[in-house]
Parts: sequence; C-alpha cells; structure tokens
Amino acid sequence: MAQAMIISVDVMGGDHGPSVVIPGCDLLLSRRPDVRFALFGDEAVVRPLLDKHPRVREASTFTHCEVTVGMDEKPSQALRHGRRTSSMWKAIEVVKRGEANVAVSAGNTGALMAMSKICLRGLAGIERPAIAAIWPTLRAESIVLDVGATVGADAQQLMDFAVMGGAMARALFQVESPTIGLLNIGVEEMKGNEEVRAAGQLLRESNLPNLTYMGFVEGDDIGQGKVDVIVTEGFAGNIALKTAEGTARQVGAYLRAAMSRTLFARIGYLFARTAFQRLRDKMDPRKLNGGVFLGLNGIIIKSHGGTDAEGFASALDLGFDMVRNDLMAKINADLSVYHRGRLGVANVEP
Amino acid sequence: MAQAMIISVDVMGGDHGPSVVIPGCDLLLSRRPDVRFALFGDEAVVRPLLDKHPRVREASTFTHCEVTVGMDEKPSQALRHGRRTSSMWKAIEVVKRGEANVAVSAGNTGALMAMSKICLRGLAGIERPAIAAIWPTLRAESIVLDVGATVGADAQQLMDFAVMGGAMARALFQVESPTIGLLNIGVEEMKGNEEVRAAGQLLRESNLPNLTYMGFVEGDDIGQGKVDVIVTEGFAGNIALKTAEGTARQVGAYLRAAMSRTLFARIGYLFARTAFQRLRDKMDPRKLNGGVFLGLNGIIIKSHGGTDAEGFASALDLGFDMVRNDLMAKINADLSVYHRGRLGVANVEP
Repeated sequence: MAQAMIISVDVMGGDHGPSVVIPGCDLLLSRRPDVRFALFGDEAVVRPLLDKHPRVREASTFTHCEVTVGMDEKPSQALRHGRRTSSMWKAIEVVKRGEANVAVSAGNTGALMAMSKICLRGLAGIERPAIAAIWPTLRAESIVLDVGATVGADAQQLMDFAVMGGAMARALFQVESPTIGLLNIGVEEMKGNEEVRAAGQLLRESNLPNLTYMGFVEGDDIGQGKVDVIVTEGFAGNIALKTAEGTARQVGAYLRAAMSRTLFARIGYLFARTAFQRLRDKMDPRKLNGGVFLGLNGIIIKSHGGTDAEGFASALDLGFDMVRNDLMAKINADLSVYHRGRLGVANVEP
Repeated sequence: MAQAMIISVDVMGGDHGPSVVIPGCDLLLSRRPDVRFALFGDEAVVRPLLDKHPRVREASTFTHCEVTVGMDEKPSQALRHGRRTSSMWKAIEVVKRGEANVAVSAGNTGALMAMSKICLRGLAGIERPAIAAIWPTLRAESIVLDVGATVGADAQQLMDFAVMGGAMARALFQVESPTIGLLNIGVEEMKGNEEVRAAGQLLRESNLPNLTYMGFVEGDDIGQGKVDVIVTEGFAGNIALKTAEGTARQVGAYLRAAMSRTLFARIGYLFARTAFQRLRDKMDPRKLNGGVFLGLNGIIIKSHGGTDAEGFASALDLGFDMVRNDLMAKINADLSVYHRGRLGVANVEP
C-alpha cells in the first residue's frame, strides 16, 4: 500500500499494560519500520515509556485517555464506565472512523468484544461474531473458530463462521480454496449434536467456490493439520484451545523433569541443547499470539493478556498481515458470493 | 474377596480382535494370577489362540458366539443382528446375571453403550449414562466425564455425573471427599452456557458429604490436576480428550524431529535415552487405557479399539480395580445420600 499502515493500540490492556505494549510496538518497528501507531492510554504512564522508546514515539500519535478497562471487569461494567472514554474504546473507534486499519488490545476479552460489537457493529448478514485462533499443526498452521465469542452457535452461525474462516485462510495462507472441517465427536454423518449435523448439510449443499468442505473432524485432527479451517461453536472451541495449551505445557514439564533427573540425562541435554532450543521455539506460545475478531465492520486483534513484548509484537504482526492481505475485502467478497447463492440470485441473473 | 473375581471379555472387539485380546488376558494373569475370565467369541479363531496361551485357557470359561459386532456398525445395526447373539452382548449379559463382576470390550463404542443400556438398564434416578476417562495430570490422575455418551447433558444430568464421578474417584484414588470442577470457558459465575451455570448452582447447593465442589475449571486446568473429577457434557468432553491426545502426539513428533536432526542432538539422545524412555512411559497411552461406563446396573469397561495386548491388559486392570474397590457399592451409596437430600428425607427422619 502507498500509505503507511496505521495500527491502533490500546496501550493499557493486558496484565502488564504499557510496560509490555510499548516495547512490543518497538519490536514490530524493528521488523516493519513503515508501520505507524495510534496509541491510546494514560499519559502519566505512557509518556515516560515513549521517552525510553523514541522510535515508537516518532512513529506514533498518542491520545490521553482518562479511563482504563480492568482485566476482571464484566463487559457490562466496562461499557458503563469505559464507553467513549477508555483507551480500549478509543482504539476501536479510530478503526470505525477509518483513521486506523486495525486495532490491537491485550485487554479483557469480554469487554473488548462487547465494545467492538457496539462500536463497529456486525457485518451485514452475520448474526454473531467469532474469535479465530491460529493453531500450530504438524503440517503448518490452521485457523480454529470460534474459540469463545459465541457459545451455542447454531447451524447458520456455524456456516457463517466457515465462510469467514475461509476468507481468513485465503488471506493468511494464500490458498485459493482452503479446506474446512466441522469439529465433531466422530466423522460419521449421524454423530454429534443437531447444530453440527445441520451445519454439515449446509456446507455440503452450499458449493462455495472458495471453500473445500472436508466433513467432520475430531479433536486430534486439529494438531495434525488435517484441514486449513476448523469450525466449531464457542464453548467447545474454547475448551479445545485451552486443553491443547495445557497439554503442551504438561508434556514440556514432563520433559524438563526427565532431562534434569540423572547426570547422563543432563549431559545428553547439553549435547542436544540446540535441538531443545528448536523445540522450545516451535512450542513458543508467543509466536502465534492473537485472536482475530471476525464478523464486525473492522479488524480487531486480541492479544493474550499475560504475554510479554515479543508476544505482543506477534499480535501486532498478525494485525499487519490481516490488513496487508486484505482480510476485510476477502470476507466481504466471500460473504457476497455466499449470500447471492442463498437467495438464488446467481441463477436468475441475466 | 474370597471368591475369584470374574472378568467377562468380548474377545472379538477391537481393530485386532482375539490376537490382541487373548495375549492381553495372559498379561493380566501374570500380574493377577487369581483372576478368572468368561470369554465370548468365535471358536474358530479363539480356540487356536487359547492353545497358544494355556494359562488363559486354564483360567477361563469360553462360550462360542456366532455373531461379531463390526467396528463401523451403527448402534441400531449392531442391535438388530447382535442382540442376544453377539460376543459383545453375551459379555454384558453375564454381568447382568451376576456371573461376572465386570465386562471389558475393545469393540465399537456406540454399539457397546447401546447394548449395555438395553441389557443392564440405567441405575434408578440416573437419566443418562456417562463414559469416564482417566486423565494423566502433573499431580497424578484425574477422572473426566462425560467423554461422549451424553451429548448435550442438562444441569441435572451434569449433577448426576458429578455424584458418579465422585464415587469413582473414591474407589480409584482412595480419597474421602474428592474435589470436583465443572468444565467451562472461564471461572467467573456468569461464564459458559445455561446448563453449566445451572449445574454449578446445583453443586453449590447440594452440600454432599462425599464431594468438594471447587467451581468452574478451564481446559488447561485438567492436565494440571487442579481437581480430582472434571464434569462436562459429552460433546465438549470428547473434544477435550481427543484434542489432548492429539497435542501430546504432536509434541512427541516435534521432539523426535528435533532429536534426530543433528549429530550433536543424536549424541545427546544416546546419553539421555533413559530419560527419554521415562518420558515415553509417562506419555504411553496404553497405560491409562479404558473408559468406564457409569450410570448402569453393572460395570462395563471400553478399551481403545486400536490398542495392543499391553493396552488391553490395562483396560482389564482398570476393571479389576473398579470391582476390587467396590465402585458399584460406592455409586449406590452416594446416589442414595444425594437422592435423600433432594427429597428432603434426611431432615424428617427420626
């Protein structure tokens, strides 16, 4: 793009707030010097940090905000005192006004989603939003959605998620017709609950040019990279994501315990330390940090609240990729093909 | 027990059938020489194997069955041609008649559950059965139920699962008042779906003497061993279980790739091979093989279909433990306390 990309940032979000977010912005600038930031936060905390990171200061506009949304606030509370005034709201609002291309926050997920819905509003024809996570697999990476925005999504909502997840896969993986699977407890047609079975039928019958529907997939297929996009309702998706994170940490703990137990094991560890470093890099949760809110009039990226500067930079990077690869245009294009198909308009056009 | 324990076995179940099941029985006898088996299967295949494993032959009765339930059959199909005639049905039936203490099958889960429900019938006061899995954790082991029997369990059914899972934890872990958590997508009271929130309220208000309710737990809490028993509806539970299995395999594949990549890593591997062996043992899915069907008038153990003799012996071992520690008596005792509490009878007794 000719114009610089502008990423708006809720500097106050996350467990560590500005002390992680500003260094994270600095890291992104070292990789992508042309990016510009619109920063929102409490100037008493943010100004001194900008003085320590002059590169960020030069590349940013800064807006002081009186209000910070707490990490434990309920969405309703956050809206009551933070609507229009908080750093979170203002970071979203500039996306709505077209003054930034994407917003990134490490703040409270529920509040961020509630404010995003009210400020940006839903895309035409999409009933409910989804949060899409990027999942490391043995093949490469897959997209899993929804991981917690829409508990109890029905068949039509799951179908919407498939279309939006497909558009995101086209943006992220540069494939023309990404493969899609519906998460279920078996691969046979009669398995699972009514919503999943009905969504399977919708996907089979939809015949969308930009999607390759592969049927049901099971929990252990996600990490094998069986499909590009895994579609699921938010309750099961959130549990799958957190269970996978917990299992990876658990195996890491077993490995550390085993490698420090005997002298021979410790010697072996020294010989193989480059290999262990590769493994750590491969499993580093900071590398794939960031959930993408889909189904709204604008792109919002949610960073893990507890991440460090490296992790926050990954979330910024994800936002950068989504803008550079035209996520919103791809979603809108795919939705319009899908909705034309549903209305049968495609068949009656001259 | 004074009398020998009798384990009934569907010899035809599983991907490999008798060639895995009979050697599995032999392995169990090497550890528990007093066990006796009631074997059911096709004599043309089973007899020659019994001749190769005389210890099993001596410790068993064998009943020829004309019909074998296929691994891919729908439950309705299996019932149509296998009811009263198949090795699966007959293995269950002797539990009903009191001629065996527990039945073990590596056959088709859906068919095994359908036959178990029809043959044994549900426990009084329990609407739906659950399958309980034993989950390795950083602390020790936990019980997770339901992992696939009852999709869309409601609050009352989740409450029943909590009582039965608690009884199983008392039998398996020898704790007086096991800790229980409800699987959810957050720990705050307003999180999740209606059923989970209502089940949380039932558990808080129930005040059962044999349960310590700890509130909601998330997917990553399971592997940390935060509670003894994790209660969930069958769809999310099955997805959590398979996602964890898939993630463990994925990390194992990363580790193997890293350790074989350079000469130094391979030398390191040689030094640390005892440590790696410990890790493999720790993560060996055969060690904790077997789902326990709860909520029926009898104990049925479902072994993984694809396991080997070692894995099948673990499933037999689990059945042995459940009988020796009086699982059925503990479930009945806990259910009766629970139902008395619900009816308020406890308060009006003299």
